[in-house]
Amino acid sequence: MLNFDFCSPTYFAFGKDTEERTGELVKRFGGSKVLIHYGEGSVERSGLLNRVKKSLQESEIEFVELGGVQPNPRASLVYEGIELCREEQVDFILGVGGGSAVDSAKAIAVGVPYDGDFWDLYEQRPEIEEVIPVGTIITLAATGSEGSNSSVITQEKGWKKYGFRSELIRPVFSIMNPELTYTLPPYQTACGIVDMLSHILERYFSNTKEVDLTDRMSEAVMKSIIDNAFIVMNDPENYGARANLMWAGNIAHNDTLGVGREQDWSSHQIEHELSALYDVAHGAGLAVVLPAFMKFTMPKHVMRYAQLANRVWNMDINFEDPKQTASKGIAAFEMFFKMIGMPTTFEELGAKEEDIPQLTSKVRIKGDGEILGFFEPLTRDDIRSIYQLCVG
Amino acid sequence: MLNFDFCSPTYFAFGKDTEERTGELVKRFGGSKVLIHYGEGSVERSGLLNRVKKSLQESEIEFVELGGVQPNPRASLVYEGIELCREEQVDFILGVGGGSAVDSAKAIAVGVPYDGDFWDLYEQRPEIEEVIPVGTIITLAATGSEGSNSSVITQEKGWKKYGFRSELIRPVFSIMNPELTYTLPPYQTACGIVDMLSHILERYFSNTKEVDLTDRMSEAVMKSIIDNAFIVMNDPENYGARANLMWAGNIAHNDTLGVGREQDWSSHQIEHELSALYDVAHGAGLAVVLPAFMKFTMPKHVMRYAQLANRVWNMDINFEDPKQTASKGIAAFEMFFKMIGMPTTFEELGAKEEDIPQLTSKVRIKGDGEILGFFEPLTRDDIRSIYQLCVG
Repeated sequence: MLNFDFCSPTYFAFGKDTEERTGELVKRFGGSKVLIHYGEGSVERSGLLNRVKKSLQESEIEFVELGGVQPNPRASLVYEGIELCREEQVDFILGVGGGSAVDSAKAIAVGVPYDGDFWDLYEQRPEIEEVIPVGTIITLAATGSEGSNSSVITQEKGWKKYGFRSELIRPVFSIMNPELTYTLPPYQTACGIVDMLSHILERYFSNTKEVDLTDRMSEAVMKSIIDNAFIVMNDPENYGARANLMWAGNIAHNDTLGVGREQDWSSHQIEHELSALYDVAHGAGLAVVLPAFMKFTMPKHVMRYAQLANRVWNMDINFEDPKQTASKGIAAFEMFFKMIGMPTTFEELGAKEEDIPQLTSKVRIKGDGEILGFFEPLTRDDIRSIYQLCVG
Repeated sequence: MLNFDFCSPTYFAFGKDTEERTGELVKRFGGSKVLIHYGEGSVERSGLLNRVKKSLQESEIEFVELGGVQPNPRASLVYEGIELCREEQVDFILGVGGGSAVDSAKAIAVGVPYDGDFWDLYEQRPEIEEVIPVGTIITLAATGSEGSNSSVITQEKGWKKYGFRSELIRPVFSIMNPELTYTLPPYQTACGIVDMLSHILERYFSNTKEVDLTDRMSEAVMKSIIDNAFIVMNDPENYGARANLMWAGNIAHNDTLGVGREQDWSSHQIEHELSALYDVAHGAGLAVVLPAFMKFTMPKHVMRYAQLANRVWNMDINFEDPKQTASKGIAAFEMFFKMIGMPTTFEELGAKEEDIPQLTSKVRIKGDGEILGFFEPLTRDDIRSIYQLCVG
């Protein structure tokens, strides 16, 4: 096990009707003028926005609004939000919606006090010292952005999709009402499920030894996500299943399941280029990339994948040939993605084989730009092979 | 699943040599004059105390010391600590040692700004508004006190052992170096293992439905504790096993494994009277009480115990008679406690059958004082029966 620091200070209010506590929580965390930042209408149609405003009014908290966050949230709206917050002297950002609204809210929160172009922060990732506090009300179980220290924004100029991390952008509170996810279309529900599984898998793709506890907890959460996924796909208003999935989405990404291990995140980098180029949902892109990544890396990590197959999919180990078990576990993930309606090939995703050279060259690699990831260090050639495996 | 609020804001610095970061962390959390509060000598003998002082000195932080915390920490030392902190204008309490040192540190932290006898707080459990911040350096994987909102103190007058809870007494940071547990005697290691298992079981003894995620994570952590327990009992200086156990002790009690469920805690109340009367280690008392509690409650909760047997002990379910499976799971816990050197009967613990009426009448029951717990509401007669089952 590696040394680690862990701190997940977000205050979570979880359960039915918790959005009625918005005003109380903004007040508790020092907000007096709020930017309510949200997406494209469903938050309005469902009546959620009105309930949130009512709660703020009851606590005598002022607010301004900025809607229009798109999936793969855009830099242009972030610029608009920063300007609005400065004009209106906003001191608290409330992201209402899915991970996109929250990520966009976080970007505004770092941008307002930053003397320069916020995109520099996403490009250069310096340490920052000041943000406006962010709270969230999430309507989607997926990104874990409600408890995470990260934000991913797409810059329209050049269609770059970059992430930024800082302990300062962890939401101070997050309101999580599973009922708000009842009306999600099945496709978006499934995208969320893949996204949260990927957050666990990226931490599980690790060569660090003696992390039994983190491993077992990771496997437990994956099992629970898979079990509950089958329930909600058939019964979208099943409170228990929606609740388990919503909390799992948070646990999957607040690093409870990552501590003490070297983590990978190559699949995320490889997927980011797909959603940037084709504007597909992150979860859908991951459903295509993850099986390809697993197939490519399996031969050198047979026992790791055999453990995954055994513990998550209850598959007996083939002790004569554990590679068989490892392969079956990967096939199970792929089949699961198909069963919940996700694409698993380039064609199903709407991606094109001829774009592979372009995708490959754009994948962002830190450091010297040559090798991606830790679990299985990937060259650009390896990345190309993984995209090729996505073609099916 | 029930609505819940969850917040575990403690900053954890985990791993080798992390005690060298004491000064840095005290400073980060605003301390300028520290009370170092510890137990009975092992902290001095091991050199830990000197390393901590050196780290504080390097950060130019003043300190005073108060040693002498005993297992089942006493009110008398808390009074002494409160007085010392007031005299010396201490603004940060650092508990160094096991759960006892930390619990005693927390009691001092609430007592210093409280205008009255701190024991009133433990007797009456009011909301408090002010404490001195607490940090910890733990040398024992057990109580989870390093991340918890609770403290248990024994009042020598009348030998009462009461707990107090407040979000304000959660440590602001905890330093966790698994190497500091290498020299623990096997008995204390085993007591810690039982204690952390009990913190999970008390949350698992629940009738709340649709908490699959919390269940599975609980089962995963119990499995990991049991696996790693066998390793450390044979190889006390196995870093990985010590590390997994130490982190498990925290996860077991920061409520990650309790959210969304009605919890029980009857076994803890029943045990508290044993450690108060006989001054035995809490973990040893729990090793006696837990199997008795499980046997007593099993007939009405067959499927819950069958799940425990199946998922924690990998026992196949007997679908014709799940009670058999349930019983085997309980027997497995009892056998496990014996295997790691714990007592499982009154006699082995040094408790006396003739004290059962006294023990029974002293068990503290909230509310009307008639019914203990939620999982299986216990009358005083039931509590007597559970003590009787402890006789063996």
